[in-house]
Amino acid sequence: MLVVMQAHATDEQVRAVCQKIESLGYSPHPVPGAGRTAVCITGNKGEVEPGTLDEMPGVQEVIRVTKPYKLVSRDIKEENTVISFPGTDATIGGPGLAILAGPCAIESREQAFAIAERVSRAGAQFFRGGAYKPRTSPYSFQGLGEEGLQIMAEVREQFGMKIVTEAIDNESLELVAEYADVIQIGARNMQNFSLLKRAGRVRKPVLLKRGMSATLEEFLMAAEYVMSEGNYQVILCERGVRTFADHTRNTLDLSVVPAVHRLSHLPIVVDPSHGTGKRNKVTPMSRASVAVGADGLIVEVHHEPDKALSDGMQSLYPDQFDELMAQVRQIAPVVGRTVPAIGRHAPVAAISVDRTDTIPSSAP
Amino acid sequence: MLVVMQAHATDEQVRAVCQKIESLGYSPHPVPGAGRTAVCITGNKGEVEPGTLDEMPGVQEVIRVTKPYKLVSRDIKEENTVISFPGTDATIGGPGLAILAGPCAIESREQAFAIAERVSRAGAQFFRGGAYKPRTSPYSFQGLGEEGLQIMAEVREQFGMKIVTEAIDNESLELVAEYADVIQIGARNMQNFSLLKRAGRVRKPVLLKRGMSATLEEFLMAAEYVMSEGNYQVILCERGVRTFADHTRNTLDLSVVPAVHRLSHLPIVVDPSHGTGKRNKVTPMSRASVAVGADGLIVEVHHEPDKALSDGMQSLYPDQFDELMAQVRQIAPVVGRTVPAIGRHAPVAAISVDRTDTIPSSAP
Amino acid sequence: MLVVMQAHATDEQVRAVCQKIESLGYSPHPVPGAGRTAVCITGNKGEVEPGTLDEMPGVQEVIRVTKPYKLVSRDIKEENTVISFPGTDATIGGPGLAILAGPCAIESREQAFAIAERVSRAGAQFFRGGAYKPRTSPYSFQGLGEEGLQIMAEVREQFGMKIVTEAIDNESLELVAEYADVIQIGARNMQNFSLLKRAGRVRKPVLLKRGMSATLEEFLMAAEYVMSEGNYQVILCERGVRTFADHTRNTLDLSVVPAVHRLSHLPIVVDPSHGTGKRNKVTPMSRASVAVGADGLIVEVHHEPDKALSDGMQSLYPDQFDELMAQVRQIAPVVGRTVPAIGRHAPVAAISVDRTDTIPSSAP
Amino acid sequence: MLVVMQAHATDEQVRAVCQKIESLGYSPHPVPGAGRTAVCITGNKGEVEPGTLDEMPGVQEVIRVTKPYKLVSRDIKEENTVISFPGTDATIGGPGLAILAGPCAIESREQAFAIAERVSRAGAQFFRGGAYKPRTSPYSFQGLGEEGLQIMAEVREQFGMKIVTEAIDNESLELVAEYADVIQIGARNMQNFSLLKRAGRVRKPVLLKRGMSATLEEFLMAAEYVMSEGNYQVILCERGVRTFADHTRNTLDLSVVPAVHRLSHLPIVVDPSHGTGKRNKVTPMSRASVAVGADGLIVEVHHEPDKALSDGMQSLYPDQFDELMAQVRQIAPVVGRTVPAIGRHAPVAAISVDRTDTIPSSAP
Repeated sequence: MLVVMQAHATDEQVRAVCQKIESLGYSPHPVPGAGRTAVCITGNKGEVEPGTLDEMPGVQEVIRVTKPYKLVSRDIKEENTVISFPGTDATIGGPGLAILAGPCAIESREQAFAIAERVSRAGAQFFRGGAYKPRTSPYSFQGLGEEGLQIMAEVREQFGMKIVTEAIDNESLELVAEYADVIQIGARNMQNFSLLKRAGRVRKPVLLKRGMSATLEEFLMAAEYVMSEGNYQVILCERGVRTFADHTRNTLDLSVVPAVHRLSHLPIVVDPSHGTGKRNKVTPMSRASVAVGADGLIVEVHHEPDKALSDGMQSLYPDQFDELMAQVRQIAPVVGRTVPAIGRHAPVAAISVDRTDTIPSSAP
Repeated sequence: MLVVMQAHATDEQVRAVCQKIESLGYSPHPVPGAGRTAVCITGNKGEVEPGTLDEMPGVQEVIRVTKPYKLVSRDIKEENTVISFPGTDATIGGPGLAILAGPCAIESREQAFAIAERVSRAGAQFFRGGAYKPRTSPYSFQGLGEEGLQIMAEVREQFGMKIVTEAIDNESLELVAEYADVIQIGARNMQNFSLLKRAGRVRKPVLLKRGMSATLEEFLMAAEYVMSEGNYQVILCERGVRTFADHTRNTLDLSVVPAVHRLSHLPIVVDPSHGTGKRNKVTPMSRASVAVGADGLIVEVHHEPDKALSDGMQSLYPDQFDELMAQVRQIAPVVGRTVPAIGRHAPVAAISVDRTDTIPSSAP
Repeated sequence: MLVVMQAHATDEQVRAVCQKIESLGYSPHPVPGAGRTAVCITGNKGEVEPGTLDEMPGVQEVIRVTKPYKLVSRDIKEENTVISFPGTDATIGGPGLAILAGPCAIESREQAFAIAERVSRAGAQFFRGGAYKPRTSPYSFQGLGEEGLQIMAEVREQFGMKIVTEAIDNESLELVAEYADVIQIGARNMQNFSLLKRAGRVRKPVLLKRGMSATLEEFLMAAEYVMSEGNYQVILCERGVRTFADHTRNTLDLSVVPAVHRLSHLPIVVDPSHGTGKRNKVTPMSRASVAVGADGLIVEVHHEPDKALSDGMQSLYPDQFDELMAQVRQIAPVVGRTVPAIGRHAPVAAISVDRTDTIPSSAP
Repeated sequence: MLVVMQAHATDEQVRAVCQKIESLGYSPHPVPGAGRTAVCITGNKGEVEPGTLDEMPGVQEVIRVTKPYKLVSRDIKEENTVISFPGTDATIGGPGLAILAGPCAIESREQAFAIAERVSRAGAQFFRGGAYKPRTSPYSFQGLGEEGLQIMAEVREQFGMKIVTEAIDNESLELVAEYADVIQIGARNMQNFSLLKRAGRVRKPVLLKRGMSATLEEFLMAAEYVMSEGNYQVILCERGVRTFADHTRNTLDLSVVPAVHRLSHLPIVVDPSHGTGKRNKVTPMSRASVAVGADGLIVEVHHEPDKALSDGMQSLYPDQFDELMAQVRQIAPVVGRTVPAIGRHAPVAAISVDRTDTIPSSAP
């Protein structure tokens, strides 16, 4: 914490601020500058509650310095977190690009299998699909519930893909944790701290989507909630933020990928489907996501988008997903990544991935 | 739904769009204009899932027309919803301004009583305080839980104020519903649809805070979730939205008050404490909130803000709250509102309140 | 400037940062904390160009502390700037509320006079109207140019109101400065620094509108540009900012009023017409603007809004403006302000105005 | 224009709306739906001024349909605009990726030559640098003016690169037009319509940067201003928009690239330097820009960033620029683009570029 005094603050006012800081149990360090004095605060373990410091006579501004996150930070753990899945060579955060694909919602066994067959063949290692759907309208399709989870379990058995699905409350979390390989927490629940804590007590990887107006710090703090309960397998997911721009449903903030990689050891994947809300933007933004250095993609695919019960406008046709994979397969090596081959899962490559912002030009 | 064709769209393309609309079970109405043709869609009861219409050859844009909300709308119910509280003359949505005040969090019996004594004396009819706190950091004070609720119940008994407190998940909702007079749903949970549905099954008023990046439509749809389960006593609350502006913690969007009053019969109160995050902005913005036509205020007050376990920076001192009430008492009559007198609760005034945007100049 | 080191930064890295700071000609002040070290920089007169400090090994973040503005700041001048107009008792920034009203654009002599007659009678001391219009489309009406200025001059002669009109480039600035009493710089030109400098060389008051995405600091820096050229008569104007919210054309940020009053001695008025873009929101937001403590209002009025050549949707009918004035007249005394009486200009009241955020409850 | 009536609107109210539309000179087309009636308006050549339609009894909402842009639209010109430069094989909008690089500001002949030598060798065909600098603070370095332009002209002669530099007002525009090959209009001037019109009368290509809070429509309308004066050589430039996100200086909105390509025939380049404001994000976002389909990059490079007079924090070192080019060179072919070879300008490739959102997987 740094207390910046006004230009015309008196010595007495500076002294009063220092005494206040001491009375709060911290140590003040006044630093007189050319124009004004600043008082650094040390001796705090976590954040200082600024209380009434900024209201004291002579105080111009109080600036927070200490970051509140710990476990998510590279300060605590320098090497990348790589999440692996027993019985498969798929990883998230490793050198192989993780591809998560499937319908917005599981609608029926037929629908799920038809789509799973196509995305698996195209190289996806993870099958995504909602059994519990957080919908803006109470009158919209809310998901099949446990029946949807059972269908996903069958998909896993049939196609060997790992299963990713969303939990929307503590009740659904229990069921999802039972069936799924990765538990998704949606953007609207990014600060549902009760749900985050519960997810932290489960021993399955959690895919945490960025809230629509979450700063990077809030995003990392949400991950901290999960980790603070003992679950260290967190995958971050950028899915677009809310801005004034109206040519896409959300504004996909790709710069958060290198920003996360700089501050945190956690992997981050990108969702260009929700991030744009428009089918014709999904493939270009998928290419960009891989190029920027994302650890994976999560993409909505539907074999009959105009009959989809949700998000039809942003779902790719299977043929478009094939095309997306073909393009991504060409870009991945430039950033030192491998992509699963068509029709089977790729072996884990031996090369190491430096996620701190730049990649070697000799990557491939 | 309106499908706007491109300027150079062919007759065949227009026909194809019309056929597609028919195949979806709706009726197409092509309207040829000077520059281009538009196709209106009717026959839909709710929203049309646009499916793949916007991808068809010759289509420029698909514009949604039908609003998805029903029960919240003045289309369904023209007169204002007024929420009353048995055994008291306080209302929310009636001619009397509702004043909700208290600490951010209940910290102890002593703290709660000290603050309650002051805000009650100043004219607040509702005591607010958190027993379950949604905090950005897992390491911050998370609230006293049920003990906090018990303290609030004592406050109600002692001071005659009604009790407002937040539920953060389905578990806490049950307890909160047992103790509180108004159940608060926080901004971070505005799209926690599972929680909204549960709150809709309770028979107590729900105070629903606007999410940090919620459009007016999303805000109303969240209220629709509560109402769709049978609970019609919903109070909306503007508490600031997330923008680029950095001189306040959030940007308080006061124009949403007349906008809500135009579209909906539900009352709306304003929270200038979270809406600004700075003590010295709370009183000016409270004056503005009353002047714009809000149905009430919800204000954080603490007798020792620099010892507060949360949100100390935005809590008013009791003396400042007295001052705020004095100022608000002068502005309220201009918009045809009454404010409880100091030291006791005001009788319900007989005059009627027109909430649709303007107020008579002869108001008082 | 404050350089925050990483938790695991070595002593050597801290030393290297200190040496770098010295090599830039500043003084480093390392402050070791519990978790990490911070290095304060002093010895700088203006802003430090952070250069490559944030890229040095062991550096976590570089935080700017010194504010770049000088002349606009209360650090330089504690008392309020009050702008007065010879030959009239109207002021901007004094105890009397400044009312600026008129059409979006001057369309004809008849139109201007019809509107001027009404707004003058209702109590406006200033007549606003555009002769040069910055329009989003090149195909929209661009204003009458000098003919419009001549009409405004006639309005001044006829009705005794002072004239406010916009300059859109260096060319129009010369003409506007010749005719007008207040030169308006529009939101789209808030960072047209060339125009700001020219306006700074004129000796007429400048009304500077906040840019659609301007932070408070950028807004004040734009005023600093004008003042740095020697023109100290600057009036700030909040007119709404760009956010995701879509129920109004812009989001009127009323909290900027007390924020400006805290940091700067300059007056600030509010434009609820552009700030909302909807006629039915103008009066409620005008009430709120006065209640929050604004030094004045600038309102669009048109006698035939549906024939207006621009901004018809947000222009009040003269009767609505009468009503607005009647309401504002009731609220102004609560914040210690006077409003011109109907039909004539008000005398300057003797009471003083404290613009730093709160107003005495005994105001009237 | 579409007028949506309220659910309970009477036939009379619908008739009144239709009559109003006729009185404005347009044709009304009432379309009765299941829940409510909508009235389409045709017969308008440009935009309908909605006037007071939305205030009429029974009207719920007025929705604009017609887009105001013409010349920028693919409706007018289907094939891509490719801007070529006589005496060189460089193009913007063609199959070759355009690389614009150089310092933020021209500081001296030595500085300019040192940087030009390096970026030219790395493959840049265009040298960017500011002679007139729009700075937030009036006390910051404002550029060398014409001297800077002369230095740039020498750079062109020496290295064969084309010259790109910013005009900030009508005065500088004349000089810039005389010296430069491409006239840049900065983000802060995107709606300086006076400057846009002047630029439209010049016969040199204009690089138009997106304003910090410009919607896509406003961005295109700014280009329309230039084109409406007869200058059809406009290059759009995405450089980040203003959002709440604070981990970068601006939020680079890459989805605008495919959105522009869908609606307009104009080329669009991306500026990852201003778009992120942080050196360590420039290379990842450059890769993403090329991958998404941008027609070029504009990148800040400085040989001594910590001595730069402006924007040092976001300028790449020449070695980092070499690395950026090496990476971009690998990604370009995936989207069917060529990149100039190291040390010389690339020949124009013969393949055609489809800019409408997707690229063939078999690209090369």
